[in-house]
Amino acid sequence: MRVLGVDPGIAITGYGILDFAGNSFSPVDYGCIRSAADIPPHLRLNKLYNELKDLIVKYRPQCLAVEELFFNRNVRTAMSVGQARGVIILAAAQSELAVYEYTPLQVKQAVVGRGRAGKQQVQYMIKIILKLPVVPQPDDVADALAVAVCHVNNHSGLFMI
Amino acid sequence: MRVLGVDPGIAITGYGILDFAGNSFSPVDYGCIRSAADIPPHLRLNKLYNELKDLIVKYRPQCLAVEELFFNRNVRTAMSVGQARGVIILAAAQSELAVYEYTPLQVKQAVVGRGRAGKQQVQYMIKIILKLPVVPQPDDVADALAVAVCHVNNHSGLFMI
Repeated sequence: MRVLGVDPGIAITGYGILDFAGNSFSPVDYGCIRSAADIPPHLRLNKLYNELKDLIVKYRPQCLAVEELFFNRNVRTAMSVGQARGVIILAAAQSELAVYEYTPLQVKQAVVGRGRAGKQQVQYMIKIILKLPVVPQPDDVADALAVAVCHVNNHSGLFMI
Repeated sequence: MRVLGVDPGIAITGYGILDFAGNSFSPVDYGCIRSAADIPPHLRLNKLYNELKDLIVKYRPQCLAVEELFFNRNVRTAMSVGQARGVIILAAAQSELAVYEYTPLQVKQAVVGRGRAGKQQVQYMIKIILKLPVVPQPDDVADALAVAVCHVNNHSGLFMI
């Protein structure tokens, strides 16, 4: 199973591509797509779309896993993240990837074993689960890997924790 | 000047294409793109993107005018509208349209002459300004035409009211 996990944002979108086979994970690639604040918003969305499409073409994941809406941020942030999320989901739909959404609670539950875990605990567990040399930076990358791990947890019959 | 005005939404996206020449408006086409609630979200976004692209290819507007974020709705609504807005802005960027955003205040100011005008006043004035037989329905269509009128008002040197 090859999963693309994404943590959407207009300035930084984290991504993580994971293989899961024989009960173990192999990180294929992870990083982030950035765009500068001085680029007009429509060109930032276009850049995000193009770079994500390139990743999909290069790595051919079977599905996209993305965090569901969150409720603790403000409306302006939600609108901006929503726009980024829209073009990411569109890129996946056009490439015929299945799209799965998970709540922050599900992601934390899958990675740390409890829904109220802190951000740093999630990052630490991502490093352990994926046998990475260091915690991926910035946070958006670890978050993208976390939602990919959550998807595997929900679709492989794996009971990790 | 040919403007595409859009009022984004995941269930209903209103659109209005207007020509403005010799100090008068000609509505070219207006209507809405709908998607049913039982279609998965990623396929709804894909449908919206494809149908908007078709309109752009058919009518070749020079620019997209869209309302800026609003602050009076909740985070879940903002995220959902944001996703629709993201794919609309992406479709425009890919077709090399200029993208303009206007606040609800600017739209009301342009169409009714005052920023605190009610929704029905905007709709009534759209019917008058564009010499339409009836107020376009649903509201999303009138709102899309209103943002297109607002764009003309801001870019043609026209002082309408």
